[in-house]
Amino acid sequence: MHSEFLRPLAAIVGEAHVLTDERDTAGHFTDWRKQYYGRAECVVRPANTGEVAEIVKLCGRENVAIVPQGGNTGLSGGATPVGAQREIVLSLSRMNRIRHVDPLDDSLVAEAGCVLANVQQAAEAAGRYFPVSLAAEGSCQIGGILSTNAGGVNVLRYGNTREQVLGLEVVLPDGSVWDGLRSLRKDNTGYDLKQLFIGAEGTLGVITAAVLKMRARPSASTTAWVALETPAAAVELLGRLRDRVGECVSAFELVSRRCLEAVLAHAHDTQDPFAAVHPWYVLVELEDASTFESLQSRLEASLAECIEQGKARDAAIAASHLQAAALWRIRESIPEAQFANVKHDVSVAVSRVPLLIERAEAALAKAFPGVQSYIFGHVGDGNLHYNVGDRGLQARRSDVNRIVYDVVASLDGSISAEHGLGQLKREEIKRHKQALELELMRTLKRALDPNGLMNPGKVL
Amino acid sequence: MHSEFLRPLAAIVGEAHVLTDERDTAGHFTDWRKQYYGRAECVVRPANTGEVAEIVKLCGRENVAIVPQGGNTGLSGGATPVGAQREIVLSLSRMNRIRHVDPLDDSLVAEAGCVLANVQQAAEAAGRYFPVSLAAEGSCQIGGILSTNAGGVNVLRYGNTREQVLGLEVVLPDGSVWDGLRSLRKDNTGYDLKQLFIGAEGTLGVITAAVLKMRARPSASTTAWVALETPAAAVELLGRLRDRVGECVSAFELVSRRCLEAVLAHAHDTQDPFAAVHPWYVLVELEDASTFESLQSRLEASLAECIEQGKARDAAIAASHLQAAALWRIRESIPEAQFANVKHDVSVAVSRVPLLIERAEAALAKAFPGVQSYIFGHVGDGNLHYNVGDRGLQARRSDVNRIVYDVVASLDGSISAEHGLGQLKREEIKRHKQALELELMRTLKRALDPNGLMNPGKVL
Repeated sequence: MHSEFLRPLAAIVGEAHVLTDERDTAGHFTDWRKQYYGRAECVVRPANTGEVAEIVKLCGRENVAIVPQGGNTGLSGGATPVGAQREIVLSLSRMNRIRHVDPLDDSLVAEAGCVLANVQQAAEAAGRYFPVSLAAEGSCQIGGILSTNAGGVNVLRYGNTREQVLGLEVVLPDGSVWDGLRSLRKDNTGYDLKQLFIGAEGTLGVITAAVLKMRARPSASTTAWVALETPAAAVELLGRLRDRVGECVSAFELVSRRCLEAVLAHAHDTQDPFAAVHPWYVLVELEDASTFESLQSRLEASLAECIEQGKARDAAIAASHLQAAALWRIRESIPEAQFANVKHDVSVAVSRVPLLIERAEAALAKAFPGVQSYIFGHVGDGNLHYNVGDRGLQARRSDVNRIVYDVVASLDGSISAEHGLGQLKREEIKRHKQALELELMRTLKRALDPNGLMNPGKVL
Repeated sequence: MHSEFLRPLAAIVGEAHVLTDERDTAGHFTDWRKQYYGRAECVVRPANTGEVAEIVKLCGRENVAIVPQGGNTGLSGGATPVGAQREIVLSLSRMNRIRHVDPLDDSLVAEAGCVLANVQQAAEAAGRYFPVSLAAEGSCQIGGILSTNAGGVNVLRYGNTREQVLGLEVVLPDGSVWDGLRSLRKDNTGYDLKQLFIGAEGTLGVITAAVLKMRARPSASTTAWVALETPAAAVELLGRLRDRVGECVSAFELVSRRCLEAVLAHAHDTQDPFAAVHPWYVLVELEDASTFESLQSRLEASLAECIEQGKARDAAIAASHLQAAALWRIRESIPEAQFANVKHDVSVAVSRVPLLIERAEAALAKAFPGVQSYIFGHVGDGNLHYNVGDRGLQARRSDVNRIVYDVVASLDGSISAEHGLGQLKREEIKRHKQALELELMRTLKRALDPNGLMNPGKVL
């Protein structure tokens, strides 16, 4: 710790928590998919909010930029240094305490470094439920899911991460600490400052802790696999279910025949729920506080009616948890069954999902005759994972992106539904966002971080 | 229309829509409770977003401030001119079109001047439900409920107005139009700009339209009146109900014995649901997509268990819609039954509601021996209407406020849960908000409205 910068840094956190040896830093200087790599002066691992504040102040004096990093599971390079200026990686992992659980308030206070699964378990232990759930939940951290406003499989019923937050603690770019750790369901005393930092990917400050809502635990769930003629039939079925069973639809996942076939070929413990071949499927799950029998009979009646009216081709309702798990296994195996193609994480209004698929398929077929798409995703959120071709198409990746993104733009959609902009889509977004919107974002950035030291090269 | 300012204004909206005659302007220059009054140059009534933009540009050139006004039903003077500088009232009432209803997307696009009840009806006509509901719903407007992030009786289940918004259209302080009317459930492409304008009380721009979420309509509801020993028992009962019936608790309203007695004396068509006297009550409502019988039997079982365990003193479940309406009539009559006292609209974490009441009662009894409080409200949101004394106490209003607000502050609560700051609490909030938080708010205000022409003298 000999440099003019590292010595005072070590004085704040202790020498053991300033990492400079390549064996220690390597994992922090790249993202987990190894798509990005950037050198930084060091990785610093503060133990508490006060240390974070001291680090941010020191960096301000020394004009060193800060890259906040949680579980480092992001998909857009948002937590990897860019290396265009002096930077440090600020790892929040040691700040992993759940400070407080209040079952009567249905809230808990978690530090930024808490692993998501641990927060889920803390809620569970209090007889409650924390609904944010995604593939990386065993390693992603609260600071990261807040900073990317993470989505996942429960958005349809519970909303994005933003909707799970009651209060925040944030170290601002000047090193001051904003203690916004209030647990209020209603507070109309001025601008809702926490909203600024949620989804800002660390570019406006460092989130160090949050008050999170817990939910009542659903007591019953039922799962079905439904065969459909078209994506439009899927959107109609969702509307029908909302008519009949209200808001208890907790998952509504579209799967194309091609995705199912890829899964059947790849995952040998899966099987087609139907004997016949169908072009499209949805996995439907209902949850509420009634009983399994009540939910199931309501789902059965709705699906029977849809089949009678020709709006669905077939349906299979899971008779047991085991059968439900087998249906989920199909859905969850899709990513690994078709991993080397050109991927998109896009969203449109739910009613426009059929148009999105129709237009994108037509445009892709024209540009790449015979190309095959793997289409699946959270159709109930208007969010599709729209994956195209195979490894051979990677060389023309940006052409494929352009075609899909232009269709999304023509439908007023988003080119990053769940994964944020990070480094990955920082340039591309300029083609899609209104100039005025980008300028508003820059205005906020300049106002809160005038020296541009918070996670530079990301988002903006 | 002879002045240098009114002539170009009339050129934008037509002479008929620039009101200067006192008979036309009087209602716009005061709030409906007539607590505030302020003169402005005129009231201008644009027909569309383009006209709003032109007006804002003209005001910028002429250095005239803008007071956006909707249904003018606010309780904090947020839509009344202050009169400290040249101002106009910008009435959005003519912009009352519902531009689009999309049942498959569960969304609708409403202009700022739409009356809330009309939006509720448009959702109803589409077989859906718009959950924001409050006393002024027959006259308050969408722009106003967005700008104040209105609460109301359905927050427990559906959240505040903020949580009902998918997109916004806003005329910015420089007269440019931000078209953020997207209907995306997931969009992680940068800062969530709409959050800035929701709840900003018109101080950062003029909301001209919004994309609002519609919800599935609950098919069943059941209502009960429960007698309790203490406010702590109420909070425990809520926790118990969440254990047993999950998130279908849609209302959970606390009523003190004194409030009930005031209602019985005032509203002759009401009667005490119980023969015995009890110190506290809650009105509980459950809603979901099952059946009345299913909901009722679950509620009955939960309440029976609570009574057996001594956690509740008695309970009456409404056997019909008529009986449910009679219970709601008690709750809804409370405001008019005790209207001339010193009022507070405060919130704390739900688990701290008992402490709030205990501490405030003790402090008030010390300062004003023998004083009586009327305590009721949305305890499920941690939000109490805490009203003290009678007309005679009005002279010492600010002392009473101070006592209640200091207790709220000691519990990290809010001095304006639902009603905003406006002019009413603009000074008081300085005692309660951290200096850093106020400074962050000022930073945002300066960044977005550098000339300070958007609703001056409100919030900040």
